[in-house]
Order: sequence, then structure tokens, then C-alpha cells
Amino acid sequence: MAATSTRESMGHSEGKKVNPEIESERRKAEFNPLELTYFLEGGQENTEKRRLLEADVFSDPQFKKEELSFMNQEQRYTYSIRQALRAIKKMKELDITDNKQQWIFKEAVHGTEESNLSLHSSMFLHCIYSQMTQEQQEIWLNAAFDYTLIGTYAQTELGHGTNLRGLETTSTYDPSTQEFVLHSPTLTSMKWWPGNLGKTVTHAIVAARLITQGKDHGTHMFMVQLRSLEDHRPMPGVELGDIGPKLGFSNIDNGFLRLNHVRVPRDHMCMRYSQVAPDGTYSAPSNSKLSYGSMVVIRSFLIDHVAVGLAKGAVIATRYSAVRRQSELIPGRPEPRILDYQSQQMKLFPQIATAYAFLVCGDQLKERYMTYLSQTDEGNFSALPELHGTTAGVKAFSTEMAANGLEILRMACGGHGFSAASGFPEIYGNVVAACTYEGENTVMHLQTARFLMKTVRQAKEGAKLTPFMSYLTANQREHCPARTPEDFMNIQTLVNAYRHRARRMVNHAESCVQEDLASGKSHAIAWNNNHLHLIAASKAHCHLFILDSFLHGVESSECEGAARRMLDTLIRFYALHGIVQNKGEFLLSGYISVEQLDLISKQLINLLEVIRPNAVALVDAFDIHDDRLLSVLGRYDGNVYENLYKWAKSSPLNKTEVPEAYQLYIKPFLEENRNRVQAKL
Amino acid sequence: MAATSTRESMGHSEGKKVNPEIESERRKAEFNPLELTYFLEGGQENTEKRRLLEADVFSDPQFKKEELSFMNQEQRYTYSIRQALRAIKKMKELDITDNKQQWIFKEAVHGTEESNLSLHSSMFLHCIYSQMTQEQQEIWLNAAFDYTLIGTYAQTELGHGTNLRGLETTSTYDPSTQEFVLHSPTLTSMKWWPGNLGKTVTHAIVAARLITQGKDHGTHMFMVQLRSLEDHRPMPGVELGDIGPKLGFSNIDNGFLRLNHVRVPRDHMCMRYSQVAPDGTYSAPSNSKLSYGSMVVIRSFLIDHVAVGLAKGAVIATRYSAVRRQSELIPGRPEPRILDYQSQQMKLFPQIATAYAFLVCGDQLKERYMTYLSQTDEGNFSALPELHGTTAGVKAFSTEMAANGLEILRMACGGHGFSAASGFPEIYGNVVAACTYEGENTVMHLQTARFLMKTVRQAKEGAKLTPFMSYLTANQREHCPARTPEDFMNIQTLVNAYRHRARRMVNHAESCVQEDLASGKSHAIAWNNNHLHLIAASKAHCHLFILDSFLHGVESSECEGAARRMLDTLIRFYALHGIVQNKGEFLLSGYISVEQLDLISKQLINLLEVIRPNAVALVDAFDIHDDRLLSVLGRYDGNVYENLYKWAKSSPLNKTEVPEAYQLYIKPFLEENRNRVQAKL
Repeated sequence: MAATSTRESMGHSEGKKVNPEIESERRKAEFNPLELTYFLEGGQENTEKRRLLEADVFSDPQFKKEELSFMNQEQRYTYSIRQALRAIKKMKELDITDNKQQWIFKEAVHGTEESNLSLHSSMFLHCIYSQMTQEQQEIWLNAAFDYTLIGTYAQTELGHGTNLRGLETTSTYDPSTQEFVLHSPTLTSMKWWPGNLGKTVTHAIVAARLITQGKDHGTHMFMVQLRSLEDHRPMPGVELGDIGPKLGFSNIDNGFLRLNHVRVPRDHMCMRYSQVAPDGTYSAPSNSKLSYGSMVVIRSFLIDHVAVGLAKGAVIATRYSAVRRQSELIPGRPEPRILDYQSQQMKLFPQIATAYAFLVCGDQLKERYMTYLSQTDEGNFSALPELHGTTAGVKAFSTEMAANGLEILRMACGGHGFSAASGFPEIYGNVVAACTYEGENTVMHLQTARFLMKTVRQAKEGAKLTPFMSYLTANQREHCPARTPEDFMNIQTLVNAYRHRARRMVNHAESCVQEDLASGKSHAIAWNNNHLHLIAASKAHCHLFILDSFLHGVESSECEGAARRMLDTLIRFYALHGIVQNKGEFLLSGYISVEQLDLISKQLINLLEVIRPNAVALVDAFDIHDDRLLSVLGRYDGNVYENLYKWAKSSPLNKTEVPEAYQLYIKPFLEENRNRVQAKL
Repeated sequence: MAATSTRESMGHSEGKKVNPEIESERRKAEFNPLELTYFLEGGQENTEKRRLLEADVFSDPQFKKEELSFMNQEQRYTYSIRQALRAIKKMKELDITDNKQQWIFKEAVHGTEESNLSLHSSMFLHCIYSQMTQEQQEIWLNAAFDYTLIGTYAQTELGHGTNLRGLETTSTYDPSTQEFVLHSPTLTSMKWWPGNLGKTVTHAIVAARLITQGKDHGTHMFMVQLRSLEDHRPMPGVELGDIGPKLGFSNIDNGFLRLNHVRVPRDHMCMRYSQVAPDGTYSAPSNSKLSYGSMVVIRSFLIDHVAVGLAKGAVIATRYSAVRRQSELIPGRPEPRILDYQSQQMKLFPQIATAYAFLVCGDQLKERYMTYLSQTDEGNFSALPELHGTTAGVKAFSTEMAANGLEILRMACGGHGFSAASGFPEIYGNVVAACTYEGENTVMHLQTARFLMKTVRQAKEGAKLTPFMSYLTANQREHCPARTPEDFMNIQTLVNAYRHRARRMVNHAESCVQEDLASGKSHAIAWNNNHLHLIAASKAHCHLFILDSFLHGVESSECEGAARRMLDTLIRFYALHGIVQNKGEFLLSGYISVEQLDLISKQLINLLEVIRPNAVALVDAFDIHDDRLLSVLGRYDGNVYENLYKWAKSSPLNKTEVPEAYQLYIKPFLEENRNRVQAKL
């Protein structure tokens, strides 16, 4: 099968009419969007492979999308379970075993990588891999791969989220039967939130405090069967269910789980690092830090996830802005495309640039992690603190920016952005959730701040910093040499500005903490009293890191010519926009003067004109098929209005011309009122 | 019937246990929350009247709330139509005719003022009042009051929102039958979005271009019957329906309407200002600006609406933060309340202060409008430009801040904020919509910017400015005298900082426009090329206006003692927080130095400690009953966890232990896999 064309790859069949409004925008582009698609995916081969895989899904009638927003919670769940199981079966048939390929396939099926069995193939499998012995893996890994059971990972409790040490669920070893007794001793100890737990899974790896020989050894993992493999009913002592409707993930059965003295065999404890012997003797793990590495990977995938969400939003809002005409720009002339308003450009273009930046940054993080992994083979773990210390904050920074950006993009579509037809409500719900899960954002920033404070202190004590972190000790008194708006196209000037700002914010936070310590406050109180500054320090650091990654990703790529010039523009635009958005901190750093800030605004505005003719091509380059985008406003063909109409006509309230509520309530109400008026006359 | 106690007024029945966590927070308060309730409502009498009215609703079994998030769109609609009609009937029985009282009653019934007949009692009635002649009013006003028909107002079209002049629907006068022929000539001319249009109304006032004697006279209003009063079917030539699910207002049937040469008698045109004579002769209105006044009122109500939404969010997140315990603040000590983390306080307290500021500002705007109205009696319309020019931006500023604030508050509740049980998804959807409706926010800011640019030019030409606007001509070279954090408690210093910042942003925008004009750009292009600066100018102006209103509202109140001191603290906190958030612009103004900015951060942090013990009391003072709040996390009694559990258990997916999807999909899937594995063995 040949690779699809760009048009096809975005859901356009030949013969169908493309809105001339958007067609003309595509003709304006000064680069070939396909080159940026290749850039984003790491080469033509990857793009072609993905397109082939997607074509398998989009051409298969069993994967035809239905409209989630027309369904109630139960219908969404039932529909999406069906699709998830079909996807797994089909991937088996096609022998798709590679992780990345599976991810692509599932995204094509669901329109998002979140399927009703996603925890099975991510955290459940990951725990078996990383926490179980070889012997245990032989049993459970096969079962998981064969899907003779469905699993999830149950950690979060009703009363305990981010703080692992606060978990209350207990797993008490009983040497007399060689079993663990898993128990939820309080209401707040109920597991709460695990995905797919509510109605779907048969098994879970449960995080619980291990108690043996009367001693509490903290959180460990246990494989627990939750439902009968015969009839799917809860196992004895197990109470579980769905936690109810949510802002997003409306098809996923996040669940609760209450364990009442549930017994599992001794070998159901994940014993790779710690063990409990038959007599109950506990052996502690030798290296407890190993698991930090996998958090780097999970977070880098999260950055991809929100970057794709933001990219989808940018596609929708940009295409719609090319089609929508409104008001008057030049008196007497026809209504312009809203894409021609500067205020609209200031909503769209920063989000386009940010989506590129995050996509590149996610890749860069994975690359850095691979480098780190290859170093660990030689026993070198030195890159981990910086990698771990930075990804926490970058996760927080990127999820927050993506969520905010999506709302800006949605509102840039006016009223129609508010309709579920836009796709925004669904995308937003799924992206903004990432601000909270896998480490709540404030906690993440404070984690990065801890790394930064430690690094500052080490630097003061004369430690040599890594090339990236050395910004902390560079010359703070340097001033920006730019004298014209165009001088700010010098990328080194821009990076310097970010380094100065980050240094200022980090050093300021550190000196505030020191000041409080000097005044006699305890370390805990001094830390808490400076959350404001510590979080600002983390944000400034992460912003610099993302800019640096973006730059590095572009510079190390093979992209050249017009497409490369477009990327160079985007990086500068991203950097300039960030300065204008955070001008206070950049002024505080002393690198940029008040007068220079006005030059920066000017250059930012200048770049709007450079980007403007390329806007639609820039979002086309994300190469997101209509069947993944799931947005009437963002359709590749730009035929927005007729399809909004079609969508509305098929919506649930229009099944009947006269609603049920008429006979029940409206008719008696109107009749009673009319009779009363008649009686008065 | 006696007025209720504070506890009762917030949904607490005696005998029920209040969570001691929150009880102890209430004991910490240094003021009586009731005094701030009285302050916010303009006196004890108003509070007592409201409570009595609410008690009528909350004690009436027919108004018992059901959980919207458990229903699909049709169920939501049917349920909420029933409640809306019951409310109208009950208000008639109780003879509640005052607008404000009706508003309170409806909010108590629906948990929001948005009912399925809200357009009838707002825009539909308003149009009859303001656009119809006395003679016309006699017919339609009575019908509307008696509810022998149900109406809405249909302006927005599929392809046209904010730009009234772009509307395409036509109403062509036919002198041969003395009728208007209403028609939707294009797809994009379909009416789209009007509330209650989809399934409920029988009539609408339709905005359409009046064409008579071959001439297009622009948009006018026409009363059109849309559905039969016999069977609710669409009238001939009328096609209409619901526009489908949305991000918010999930119970409201926003609708579409396509008119195919629909005829209405000549006297169905609203003829108060313009008339069409039987022969088709058109008479133009004498004063077209009169209608601007009513937009001031509508916007001031919108500010109330989002302020209440933000207040609800603040109640939920603050009470939850008093109950939720997490992680470790001081090593070895029990998990602290999350309310004790500075980062949490920095999320909650600014939103509490903002909700107070917006509530006061909404009242101040209404007061100013009343003053203006009394002046118009004497033929003095001079206050309108400033009032109209400012409320546009204040609408944009307040809706954006409230929506952003709600998301901050929601995320401050961690995972549980994401659950529909928190109430946040519903509140957010309803508040964020206000960023778009009644004038899209960017358009609103640009409207205010237009007023500001005009005022700057007038000032340059020597015109005398109003006391408030005179900030534009004050001394820009003045410097802030503060030398210690405490010096920033001087409210005049803070107001001065806001005046300087607004002046700088307004003047900068003006000079950028002038610069572009001088370089030969047309006015239209120069304006478009400076949207960035113009919007910033409007925001700075509106921020100052809100601070000024907040201050004026407090200073002119009778509130004193500890409650007054609390308000004084809140104003200062609000002002300091705004400076830290927008530090770049404050630095640009030159009034505040880099060193002083650090003092401001210090003082902001100092005030966190002042507010901390009063946080729960400050949100209690909003006096929002549990039946209006509709949040498990925000319950007055703080019994969060047991009620989350109860809520989840009653959610739709838990109706059966084993879901339908098991028999249909999961079971065959697992069996097939097991058989395959068996076969392999």
C-alpha cells in the first residue's frame, strides 16, 4: 500500500470540495508543510509508517467514529470499550507489537491515546516489568500480553494523592497461611481514581503499606484479583465501582476500590527489590532511586500528550480563523478573515509556536534519557538529578501552558468554540487533567525548585555545573546589546535574556529562603514561606530549558531551506512572546531595559506578519487527520458551516421535532396560563 | 417565618455533625462573617429577605435538586424545563414580581440564574419594553407576563456574531399585504445560539435587516411566532432545532432557526424608534444611542454573574483546603491542612479577594448607572461615554479573571476538583461562556480602548476630564515613596501605582498608533497593528477601575470594626497581588522600582498570614447555601469524603454491578484470548 498524500492523510478525499477560503491560505505558504511534518516526526520514514498505520484504521468501517458528546456516560463507556477491544484484537492480527506503533494505532482509533484499557498496557505492564522478579514476570507478563486478564494500577486513595507516604491501605503478612491480607482500614484509604478500575479490570497492582512481623515497611506493590474471571463479579471482600462523571476522560471508568481483608498468596507481592520470606522476614531494596528514571520517561510522554492536544487546538482555531469572516477592518471593504486581526494572531501564533516547542522538547527529553540510560550501562548515574529535577517542572510548565493555550484557542473561535462540535471541550478536559495527574503541578515545581536550590548551593561551594546549569553562575551584570527590533532576531541575545531571568529568579528564591533561615525560621517554615518565589524560579528555569531544547532540536535536525527558516522564525517568536508575557521578570533581571522591551514588542509584531501567510501550513504540518482531530471547526476542507448544521441536526434533542417535555410540562403550563387569562377577561 | 441562622442559611441542619476540621477553622475567624454578608448585600434587610425566599425554595420538595451530571442532554433538558416552569408558577403563587427577588428565587431553584426560560424574562421582555410602542406593549407585554407564550431573542447567526451590521437575515416589507417577509437567504444567515430557541419557545424577537421600498435600512426587530400554540410544531416556513451539546449550559436548548419567507403582520415590527408606514415608507429613529445605556446594565449583571461563580469556586476550594490534609510541612508532624501551604494560599486568597472586588464593582456600576439615569431625566447624558466605554472592558476583564480564577481554584482541589462532584465543571462552563457572549472579550477591550484613545486626544486638546479619568493627565514622573513592605499598606500608594500603570499603557498605545499613522499607515491599519497595546491599555484601565470601585464601595459602606478591617486587608491584598501578577507593566510605568517590587512581594506574603485564619469565614460570608453551591467538596459541614463516596455510588455506571459492556464485549474478548492460550499449550 502506498503512503497517503498530505490531503488524504488529513482526511480529505479527492472529489470533495475544499473551501476556497482555506485553499487560498494553503497557496500562500512559503514552505512545504510536509518538511515540517518530517522534522517533527524525526524523518520521512516515520511519517510514512504512521500514515500507513492510520490508513489501516481510518479505512476500517469497524473504527468509524461516533460522537461521544451525544452519549451519556454509560453509552460512552460501552462504545469506547468496544472500540478498545477491537483495537487490541486488530493490532494482534496485524502483529503490531512496537510501543510507538501501538500508541499511534490507539490514537487513531480513539482520537486520543486514552483508551479504556490504557492502564493495562502502561502502568500495569510497567509495574510487572519493573517491580516483579523474572519468575513472577513469566506468569503475569504472559497473561497481560495475552489479555487473559485486564489490569490496572491502584495507588491514589480517596484521602491521599501525591504523598505516597501518606497511603493508608495495608497489606499484612500472615505467615500461618503464607498470605498477604489487603485491607482498607478507613474511608479515606479507599483507592480512588485508578483508570479502568470502575467496571473493566479483573486485576490490579495495588500499592499498600507492607506490614510483617508487626513492622510497617512502607508502600509496596501487590497483585490482586478484583473480579471473577467467570462472571466479572467482585471477588469476596472486594467492593468497587465507578467514581462518576468528570470534566474529561468521559469514556473512562475511573474507579474506587475498598478491600475488606482480601487475601492473596505470598508470591503476589512484587518482589524484585524487596522480599518477604515465608516466615515473614523482610529484606529491603538495595537501590531505591532506580525508579526515578522511569518518571522521566512518563513525564516526557505527558509532554507529548499535551503538546499534541495543543497542536489539535491550534489546527482547529487556525483553520477556522481562515474561514470565518467578521466585522470590518478597512471601512467599506468586505468582512476580513478573522485571521487578519492582530489580536487573533496574538491568540493563535503563540500557541502554534508553543506546540512546536513542546513537541521538540518532548523528543529532546527522550533523547537525553536514552543518553542517560546508555551511561548507566557504564555505571554512570550522574545525569539523573538534573534530568529528573528538570522534567518535574517541565511537566508542570508544559501542561499548564497547554491547558491555558487551549482555552485561548477555543475562545478565539468565539461561540462556536463553546460547542462540543468544535472538539475543544473534549480536548481541554483531557489535557487539563495532566496538570493534576502524575504529580500535581505545584508539587512538581517545588520538586524542581529543590533541585535548583541544591544546585545553587553546590555552585556556591565551588562545584562544577553541567553546561546547561552553568547559567546559574554566569555574569549577572551583563546587559543586552540590542538597539533595534531586528537585533532581537539574534537567538543568542534571546537565550541570554532567558538565562539572566532564570538566574535572577533562582537566586532571588534562594536568598529569600536564606533570609528566613537567618531570621531564625526552621528550614520547613522558610521553605513554605517562599513557595511563591520557589515556583517562579522553577518556571523561569523550565522556560529556559524548553527554549534551549527547541533550539537544540532544530539546530541538530536536517531540516533546511524555507522550512528551516520557518522554524528559525518560530523559535524567535516563541522566545519574544515569552519575554513580553513575563516582562516583569525579564526587567527584574536587569539584562533588558524598559526601552528594549518596547523594541521586543515591535519585533514580536513584525514577526506576526512573517508567520501570517504560513499559519495554515504550519498547522497542516502537524498532519492530524480529521478522524483524529474530531472537530467540525477544524476540518481539513474548511467546510465549517454546513457541517455544523449537519452535526446539530443529528444531535440527541433533535431526534423528535417536539420534545417529550412539551407534552409533560410545557403544554399544561401554557394551557393553564391561557385559561387563567381567559377567566380574567 | 423567622429568618434562618447562618448555619441553616448555608444548608446545615441542626443535629447533623460538622467536620471538626472546618469547625475549628470557623472558630479562628477574627470577624463575624454575617457582617460581610450584610456588606455584600447592601444591608441586613436584604440578606434576611433573600434567606426567607431561599428557604421557601429549599424547603419545598418539588425543588429538590437532582444531579445534572448523571443525566444525558435530553434528561437534563426535560428535568430543567420542569423545574423552570414550577419556579414560574410558584413565583406567581407567592406574588414575587420584583426583578431582584425573581432572580434570587430562580437561582435557588436552578443553582444558577440560567433557567430554561431565562431569555423570556430577560432579553425578550427587555426588547418588548425598550423597542416596542405603548400600543404594541399592551399586547405583548401582557402575554409575556402571563406566560401564554414563551419567547426568546434571536440575533446571532451561524456566520455572524458580534458584528451586528453583518447580519444577513432579511425582513422585506410587502405593502400589498402589509406584511413583513422574514427570510434566511443563506446557510450562514441561520439564527444560531439563541437560548431556549431549540425546543422551548413559541415566539422570538428576531433581528433582521429591514428592507422596504427597495432599500436596506439595517437591523431592526420583529416579533415572529415560531411554533404552533396548538401542538408546538414549527410554523410554516420555520425550521428550528437544538444546536447540540456544549461546554456549559448543558440543560439549555440553544437553538438554530431558518426562516423560509415567513410572513408577519406589519405591526409585528418593533416600532418604538423606527417605523414602516402601511405604504412602506420608513422613518428613522431620532436618537440611536439610547440603547447603549441598557448594555451598561446587562454588563453589570454579567459581572455579578461571574463574581458569584468565582465566589462559589472560592467557597468550594477554601472549605476543601481546610479539610484536606496532605504531605508534610514540618518533618515528623502530622499531614497539615493544605490551606497551610503558601502555594495553596496563593491560589485561594487572590480569588477570594477578586470575588469580593467584582461583587462590589458590579454594585458600584449599577449605582453609577442609576445616577446616570437620574441625570438623563434632566437631559444630561454626559456620563454615558465613560460608563459605556469602561463597562465593555470591565466585562471582558472580570469574565476572563473569573474563568481563570475558577480553574486555579479547581486545580487547587487536586484530582477531586476534576470530578463533577466538585461542582467545578458545571460552574466553569457557565462562567467561561461569559467571555464570549454579550460581546466577545477582545472586541470589548478594543471598544474600551477606543474610548481611551479618544479621551487621551481630548485631554491633549485641553478638554477637562472627569475625576476618575483625570489619571490620564497626572504627573507621570512621580515616584513611589514606599521604603518598607508595610508602606505598601497605604492605599493611596497602591492606587497611584495603578494609575501610573494605566496611564503608561494608555499613552503607550496611543503613541504607537500615532507612530504608525505618522509612517503613512491608514487609521484602520494602524489600529489593527496595535491591538496588542490597545488591549493592554484597556486591561490596565479596567483593573484600576475595579480597584477604585472596590475601594469606593468599602469606604462608602457602614461596615466597621473587625469586619471593616478585614475588607481593608482584602483591598490591599487584591491590589498587591495585581501588581505582582503584572509586575512588568508596573515597572514600565516607572512609578515602582525593582527594589520596591521585592518589598511588595514581601508585603503580599505578610498579608497571607493575616488572611489565613479568616479564610473560611471570608467564604462563609458569601452565604451560599449547599443547594445553590451544588458541590460535594464545598459542603458547609465539610463532610467531604463520605459524601464523595455516596455520590459516586449513586452515579449511573454503578446502577449494575457488572456493566452491559461485559456481556457484550469484555467476556467474549477474555474468553477468546484464554482459548487461544489454551490452544497454544
